[in-house]
Amino acid sequence: MSIKKPNLLKGFRDLLPKEALTKSDLIYKLKNQFELFGFTPIETPHLEYTELLIKESEGEISKQLYRFNDNGDRDVCLRFDLTVPLARFVAKNQNDLIFPFKRYAIGNVFRAEKPQFGRYREFTQCDIDFIGTESRLAEAEILKLIISSLKSLNVKDFTIRVNNRKIMNSIGIKYNFVKIIGDVLRVVDKIDKIGRAEVINELHVLGLKEEQILAISSFLDIGRGEPKEILEKLRALKIESQEFTEAINELDELQSFLGETKNIEYDVTIARGLGYYTGIVYETNLLELPEIGSVCSGGRYDNLTQNFSKQKMSGVGASFGLDRLITALLELKQINQRETKANILCAQIDKASVSYILKLAEELREKGVAVESYPDLSKLKKQFQYAEKKNIQFMVIAGSEEIEKGVFTFKNLKNKEQFEFKNASQIIEYISNLNE
Amino acid sequence: MSIKKPNLLKGFRDLLPKEALTKSDLIYKLKNQFELFGFTPIETPHLEYTELLIKESEGEISKQLYRFNDNGDRDVCLRFDLTVPLARFVAKNQNDLIFPFKRYAIGNVFRAEKPQFGRYREFTQCDIDFIGTESRLAEAEILKLIISSLKSLNVKDFTIRVNNRKIMNSIGIKYNFVKIIGDVLRVVDKIDKIGRAEVINELHVLGLKEEQILAISSFLDIGRGEPKEILEKLRALKIESQEFTEAINELDELQSFLGETKNIEYDVTIARGLGYYTGIVYETNLLELPEIGSVCSGGRYDNLTQNFSKQKMSGVGASFGLDRLITALLELKQINQRETKANILCAQIDKASVSYILKLAEELREKGVAVESYPDLSKLKKQFQYAEKKNIQFMVIAGSEEIEKGVFTFKNLKNKEQFEFKNASQIIEYISNLNE
Repeated sequence: MSIKKPNLLKGFRDLLPKEALTKSDLIYKLKNQFELFGFTPIETPHLEYTELLIKESEGEISKQLYRFNDNGDRDVCLRFDLTVPLARFVAKNQNDLIFPFKRYAIGNVFRAEKPQFGRYREFTQCDIDFIGTESRLAEAEILKLIISSLKSLNVKDFTIRVNNRKIMNSIGIKYNFVKIIGDVLRVVDKIDKIGRAEVINELHVLGLKEEQILAISSFLDIGRGEPKEILEKLRALKIESQEFTEAINELDELQSFLGETKNIEYDVTIARGLGYYTGIVYETNLLELPEIGSVCSGGRYDNLTQNFSKQKMSGVGASFGLDRLITALLELKQINQRETKANILCAQIDKASVSYILKLAEELREKGVAVESYPDLSKLKKQFQYAEKKNIQFMVIAGSEEIEKGVFTFKNLKNKEQFEFKNASQIIEYISNLNE
Repeated sequence: MSIKKPNLLKGFRDLLPKEALTKSDLIYKLKNQFELFGFTPIETPHLEYTELLIKESEGEISKQLYRFNDNGDRDVCLRFDLTVPLARFVAKNQNDLIFPFKRYAIGNVFRAEKPQFGRYREFTQCDIDFIGTESRLAEAEILKLIISSLKSLNVKDFTIRVNNRKIMNSIGIKYNFVKIIGDVLRVVDKIDKIGRAEVINELHVLGLKEEQILAISSFLDIGRGEPKEILEKLRALKIESQEFTEAINELDELQSFLGETKNIEYDVTIARGLGYYTGIVYETNLLELPEIGSVCSGGRYDNLTQNFSKQKMSGVGASFGLDRLITALLELKQINQRETKANILCAQIDKASVSYILKLAEELREKGVAVESYPDLSKLKKQFQYAEKKNIQFMVIAGSEEIEKGVFTFKNLKNKEQFEFKNASQIIEYISNLNE
């Protein structure tokens, strides 16, 4: 038989135990928060009809698709995000869903992009959406959910920067650059990275006139700050248009719903790249790691299901950047990456005592303590090395002597303490005293 | 813009909130047990090189592949199980893994089979494997893990039936039918479904002679029972071959490692369909729902990484049937399917009190109680209907009157009780008293 090389496809990766355990724990904490807010998971297939996921006009994304004809000659592709399938899902299952509909989805998506450092062709997205309501309560709840999610991960110093797309839009109407508003937003969105001077520069390149740039520039001067303070400054602009008034009212209402909430600023420079946002938008930055970019962002969209239905369906969403969060938590030393959840290894010193020691393992596990048992009758040195490699702190040893006395030899591999314990409870007591 | 029909591909499905929440909770409980035993997750890509997943010779499975050429003209396919990618993973990452290696994987696989009731072209597999040891402790730990996993799901009446492939093999050698041992095993494996008489019949069809059938038949008479009892009966067969002795010794050792363990029987009729098992095999049946088939099965294999390496790598695995488990738990009424984790709905009766009631929601969530807040200023009747549809038992209402008194009106929608509570703690106390 020929031996093959176990290669991965270019741009794909394996997650090793440490990495996968970290990710799994992170996802569990996020899911728990989502569910505390009444969001429920849904699942959609990884594979869908191509024509339902992209429009003919979408050049850029269609180059990145994993697209093929299946055995039934259907034109299919792997999903490239979770939002388009959500729209398909809502349209299809409309009669079986309860609206307002609150769902989260965590799943892998596929993009045949040029692989870059830290970017992969298959990656996990984590989205929450509150669909079928135009109330600002949806934004308020999603912002509160972002806050409690990050807190549950022990991230403390972060700011969610909130803006309303309608503000720049109404300035665009007033100063007559609404036709290129998309380009202007894209330039303004880069202000954190390239600085104010370069933004002004690029606005010139877009062909804007001095007067228009002055208007944008004095608007950008408002910058960021406490919601009430920014609202005052915006009102002082005295732009009289229905859209501007709407924008201010929405931000005002959001502020009143949130009450005294830390971690939130209003920031007129936030634009968010994605085209489908139409109202309030937000992104989340970690104060200690600004270079990492936004770890959670989103906003309100007007019409989720427009490709599938004439009925309008407004909603608010947010997307957590799992890879960025993991990078951040590692940098902030908020994650202790482990090879195993077990902190106790049951050694094997003769076959006759295996069932005796496995019984102890069972008792410990029933009390919620993770335990590994070494499978082979290897030299103890090798078993210690296994514990060391996996960063397992305690070892239990039992042979005929221990069985006769009805005890277990218990070693703390860190401080070299050694005890004879009678049962699982004594072991658990010792460990919990250590942790105090 | 043209409106499209939101169709799913044939054989694919959406999971709605109820179904997805049930599955998510089930997976969480299983993961928790796996990790208590020191198994860690890994992840491999959904897409791999086709030549690494199948051998040229494998006709049946290759017809079921989602296979295509990617943008780089690579011959790729979606994974059809988690075992072949595991072999590729272990071969590729050998130097970064700690052996014996204990991993679990839960992920979706794809097979373009003819869709049948309850069978889909994309489905979730859930596998655990203990790799790189020939010790019977691996089997013992996996069996104990199956038991505690099922107990954690509140499944009580189940039997794991254990056998050793080597037994039938040595009978095959002694009675000269080893060449068609695969066919014989396949027939014997059906004994639960078709009965003993039909098995004998089919063995005739295979062309076995009377003497051979008699040998198989008196072997099958041993049937199933307490491990010690079955071991005695097997020894009484007095088959003298190295393989038979090995088989008995392995089962004997396994029994001694397990000690007094309920839920386990030895059963000489268990064969397991999959070709790669070479030693001890097992399957798990629910006593109240035998028709559902095995909910967890597996066994020992000799050489996981044979396609990738000359080094032998033995292991033991088990696979949980998630869909079967969900079906069973629903039938046994061990799952209460819900649309949301929340059991409290914060109503909205005016905009001025939204921040007051959201503050309560925040306190409840911080104490681990799931809460939804109704986003719209709808009529209370509509908000009650929302609670009813989602089976939410309690409702909190607050307006200017409540704010003035510093209370919340709390309604138990089931027994129509109504209270004024001051804070989250009073609400939690009331609910926990109800549940006692």
